[in-house]
Formats: sequence, structure tokens, C-alpha cells
Amino acid sequence: MRKIDYREAGVDYGKIDPLKVLAQQAAARTADNLRRHGLSEVAASRGESAHVVDCGDFYLASTTECLGTKALVADAMRQVTGRTYYDAIAQDTVAMAVNDLITVGATPVTVQAYWATGSSEWFDDAVRARDLVEGWRRACDACGAVWGGGETPALAGVVAADRIDLAASCTGLVRPKARLTLGDRLGPGDAIVLLASSGIHANGVSLARKLAERLPTGYATRLPSGATFGDALLAPTVLYAPVTEALAAAGIVPHYQANITGHGWRKVMRHPATLTYRFHTLPEVPEVLRFLQRETGGDDRAAYGNLNMGAGYALFVAAADAARAAAIAAAAGVPAVVAGAVEAGPRQVVLEPLGVTFAAGDLHLRA
Amino acid sequence: MRKIDYREAGVDYGKIDPLKVLAQQAAARTADNLRRHGLSEVAASRGESAHVVDCGDFYLASTTECLGTKALVADAMRQVTGRTYYDAIAQDTVAMAVNDLITVGATPVTVQAYWATGSSEWFDDAVRARDLVEGWRRACDACGAVWGGGETPALAGVVAADRIDLAASCTGLVRPKARLTLGDRLGPGDAIVLLASSGIHANGVSLARKLAERLPTGYATRLPSGATFGDALLAPTVLYAPVTEALAAAGIVPHYQANITGHGWRKVMRHPATLTYRFHTLPEVPEVLRFLQRETGGDDRAAYGNLNMGAGYALFVAAADAARAAAIAAAAGVPAVVAGAVEAGPRQVVLEPLGVTFAAGDLHLRA
Repeated sequence: MRKIDYREAGVDYGKIDPLKVLAQQAAARTADNLRRHGLSEVAASRGESAHVVDCGDFYLASTTECLGTKALVADAMRQVTGRTYYDAIAQDTVAMAVNDLITVGATPVTVQAYWATGSSEWFDDAVRARDLVEGWRRACDACGAVWGGGETPALAGVVAADRIDLAASCTGLVRPKARLTLGDRLGPGDAIVLLASSGIHANGVSLARKLAERLPTGYATRLPSGATFGDALLAPTVLYAPVTEALAAAGIVPHYQANITGHGWRKVMRHPATLTYRFHTLPEVPEVLRFLQRETGGDDRAAYGNLNMGAGYALFVAAADAARAAAIAAAAGVPAVVAGAVEAGPRQVVLEPLGVTFAAGDLHLRA
Repeated sequence: MRKIDYREAGVDYGKIDPLKVLAQQAAARTADNLRRHGLSEVAASRGESAHVVDCGDFYLASTTECLGTKALVADAMRQVTGRTYYDAIAQDTVAMAVNDLITVGATPVTVQAYWATGSSEWFDDAVRARDLVEGWRRACDACGAVWGGGETPALAGVVAADRIDLAASCTGLVRPKARLTLGDRLGPGDAIVLLASSGIHANGVSLARKLAERLPTGYATRLPSGATFGDALLAPTVLYAPVTEALAAAGIVPHYQANITGHGWRKVMRHPATLTYRFHTLPEVPEVLRFLQRETGGDDRAAYGNLNMGAGYALFVAAADAARAAAIAAAAGVPAVVAGAVEAGPRQVVLEPLGVTFAAGDLHLRA
């Protein structure tokens, strides 16, 4: 069994990051522009999952996120089963933008769609187009957001001829302002509640595609449960907005929130504070992620450092609220577990059941 | 001289539109989701250039727009001159989102960047990356918006290996609410003030690329002024936010506004009202558009129906405000002309100096 790593699978974070740093520095310099409108940037939101502007009576939050390469999995699986799966990846795309937006305490209000194809012919496939539209609509409904519109360009020469580049933007409001969660109240003693993922979501897909190329039956490979690898990969990303709205309705304001995406459990320490995040309990690992780990030869460190491994979203709450927060999440349809706690100590994530520790230097998110 | 039409140049509106209709209908059904947050959609914004939500004390507006294929022109011109032009096309991309947003009376607040490449290597070119970042920042500065962040995915297999798909999202506020311009006050007697374009902006680029393929010296072809075709095409799109903000500061609220983009002057009648838009004066046509028209064999009807022909943005104002609005625009750096008037009559655009009329049926924007 040959190991596959992320660089080999086409995602080279070492190359993306210098440009990101340059862009982040330039972007930060534009904050002063808001003064002429009587607004101001919430500086602590720089580097967070959503950008936040102080508008006086409320905060305005916004995100833009893309699906990544998961549409290639849908396209390949259609050859196997005849289903388009575009309803599923539509939900994934909406989830990427919404699950980031809600981390700052925002209620998602408007979702915009960005669907760039390689040619106008992409839209000739009426079944696929309808699945995309319906999946997008249902995801917006589930999040309580309005689908405001979007852009559907045909970009011959930029996007591959038979492909689509799916992205979403989300705008939201933090009202009342006390709902803002940028981590200023995060501290030792807080509990960490993990919300279940449904599978790979939309991160680690390049690795999964690489594996599919190597498996004799590709995406049709059966997992122990009998599900195919492809079907399991295409379980749509969980939308966490119903949970965060239910928490707000119950009067629970998390001290911090993290959407577990491209850097796996390293994202747990995305807040810049010097704190230790210690886990005593790990959530159940979705079968497809266990399979992916085993077949790509990744150890627990590689798996938890890059994949969600069953934890799609982390809530950091007062210890006294932890059990109730988990119960509210479950009542909103998302299994949750009180999995760990925040401690004074170096910035690190400690997975006690596995003997794995991620140090601050393992994460490179901020300028 | 062989004529080139839009379908041949790769943009087939007949194929895109059915999907757009399906998406627009599904999107409209999500409006009720806002009720659970005590918000409501401004229904009249459906089909307009920006989506608007009534948030009680203010309106929230949002757009998502893409550059289209203009990056291909920049890439080709770099071979000719060594310049990257990514500062220029960054401005184009920001302009696409901001110039749409301001049509509803919104102040642009936050811009999000979407830069999807075909591989991480795209970012290895430090000069091009820096130009992209700097152009984006300067465009945000010019619009008074904060660059909130964005997404820079590497999408091997979706985006062509050495290409980039550039898009922008913009969120804005309409405050005070009286600034909302969705056309309910549009009526006979209103004057039409046209704001100058700088050239092709980002619409009609497929046609220009097709022409470049046919010209013996391609983008290096000299226009009568001595400028090259490519350099002229890459003049960045005018940002109109300084004009709309200056109008608001002067107490002028337009009755309606239209960003002149993909459907050229047909966009003048984008409002669903049954009104005639009669022009007695036409703005100066940028040299590159005159050249494009002549070399592709398009008549005035084809040219004005698809290109901006010197008019990048239309303001519909009370006749008494027209001269002052034009002067304010000029003072904000954008030449403007009081070019025509709104009349009772069938929905049509009449260009008197050219003897060209666009009827309602020539425009297919709405579901």
C-alpha cells in the first residue's frame, strides 16, 4: 500500500499561502475605507472564517467559499449509478459559505450562487441542472436564508469544457450584537462540544479522488457497510445553522466557534489565543473517513490533521452550558458530544485517546 | 470581412437562460425563509442587479459577479508587452460586483474575492500575484469598501491549468431607506444621464477575443490613436460608486439606475415598466469599441445591443436634477451627458441619432 499525501493530490498549501498572506495584508489596509460611511471593521474578524463590520446597531458578516473539486466525484459517480448528485454538492457548496458565516454568531440572511461552467452546453443536461437548483434551494431553506441570486457564466478556456466551478457567498447579521463570537470570551475551563459530520464534507476530496484512481473498482468500491465509496463521499455536508440559531434562541452564546474544514482538527486552535484544547472523547468516525485513512496509509496524525474525522463543527461554550448545548444540537438534528475542554497552556490540540498532539506551528492560517 | 456574432464567440444566451429561469423561480421561493428572522425580501429587487432584504431600519443588498473571460486577454497581452494587466482586471472584477450593487441605492460595504486557479503554481508568479492583489485593493479603496477576504482555491481538473477564474461578491447597505432605487418612481419626464465608460469594460470580451484571433497581428494591432487593441481592451472598468455616493451626499436620489453590461443598451429598459427611453444624444464611443464594431462587421443595432458604446451606467433622474447630476458625476471624475428622456409609450429604447430601436422582446433578463 502506497501512501498518498496532500501535495501529491494537487493541493500545495505551501504555494497558496504566500499569496494569501499578501492578499490578507492588502485587504487589512482597506479597513479605513469604512470610516467615510460611519462604519468600522471588527479587526478581530481578520483571519476568522467570516469578515465582520460594525454597523452601529448590528454587525454585518460575509463569506465567500467554493466547493473545491467535489463536482468531479459527482461527475464520476454519475457514470456508475446514473444519479447526478448535484443536489448533494449544491448543499455542500451552500454549507461551505454558511457554516463559515455562522462561526461569528451571524444569522445567515442571503446566499448568492456562483456557477461557472466551461460552456453553455453544461446547462443542456436538464436533470443535472434541476438537481443543482433544487439542492441549492433546499439548502437555503434549511439554513433559513434567502437565495438572493447569483451568476452563471460560461467561461470557455478558463473552466474545463464539461465542468462547473461551484461557489457561494453568504451575508448575515449579528443581532443582537451580544451574539458576536470572535473568541474574546474563550478561556480555560470552557467545554468543547463537537457537532457530528456526515462524512468527508468538502475537504480532503483531492485525496479521496487520488485514492479512487488507485482502487480497482474506483468509486464503486464497497465499504464494509455495503455502501459504495463514491456514494459515501457524496453524503452532503451538514448545515449547522439550525443548531446555532437554536442555541441563540435558548440564550446560549458560544465563547467561540470553529468550522472544521481544510485543516482538520488543527482548525480547533484557529483562534490566536495561547490555549490548549484537550479532548478526552472523540466522536464516531464516519465509515468513509476510516476507509480513506486506512487505504491511503495515513496515521491518526495525518487523518485528524486534514480530515474532520466525524467532527464537522466545534462549539466552545461555558462548561455549565455544555450538556444543554449538545442536547439542543441533537434536538436540531445534529448529534453532538461534549468532547473536551480548553485549558491554560501552550497553543495546541491534544487528542488524548490517540496520543496525538498538534502544536501551534502545525497550523498556517493567518498573516 | 466576415461577421462574428456572439453565439459563434462562445456565449449562447439561448442556452443559459432556461437554467437561469429555473434558478430564479426556485430562488424566489426562498424569500419566506426570512420571516423567521423578522426580515423580508424586497420583492421588486428580484430580477434587478442586486438583491435587497428589508432589515427594518435599513436595507441589505448583495451581488456576486464574475469577470468572464477577460483574464485570457490579459494573459495574451503579457506575451506582447510583458505587463501582467492583473491590476486592471482586478478592478474590472470588483467593478462587476460593485457597479451592480449600487444600482439599488446601496453603499458598497464589503467586497469578497473569489480567485480560483487550475493549480497552485499559478501563484508562483509573484509579479502577477502582486498586481492582482494591488489592483483589487485599489479598486476597493476607490469604492470606499472594505476587502473582507475571500477564497483562493486551486481546482485542478475544473479550472484550466494556467488560468484563473476571477469573481467578486459585494454586500452593501441602503441607509437611509429612502435611497432605495428599484424604479417605483421611474416615469415619463425623467431624464437619462449616461456615465462614460472607459472602453469595453468586461462585456463583449468573447467577441473581442474572436476578433483578435483573426487579426494578422492580434492584440498588437494598432488603433488609429496608436494604442494597441489589447491595451485598449484592458482599460479597467470605471467604478461608479464615487458618483452614486456623491449624488446621495448632494441629496439626489435617482428614480432608477442601470449598469450597462452584457446586453448593451438593451439594459436601459431592464425595468419591467412599460416606458419608452428616447435618446437624443449619444456619448462619445471609445475607440476600441468603434474598432470592434467595424472589424466584426456589426451594424449599430448589433453594437449598441451588445456593447456599452461609451455608456457604462445610466442614471434616471428627475428632469430638474439632470444637469446637476451630470456635473456631480464629472466632479467625481466620470464624464456624463444628459442623453435622453423617459416617455409614456411601449417598452423600448430609441436611439434617435442612429435610427435604431430595441423593442421589449429584444431583452431576456427576467423569469
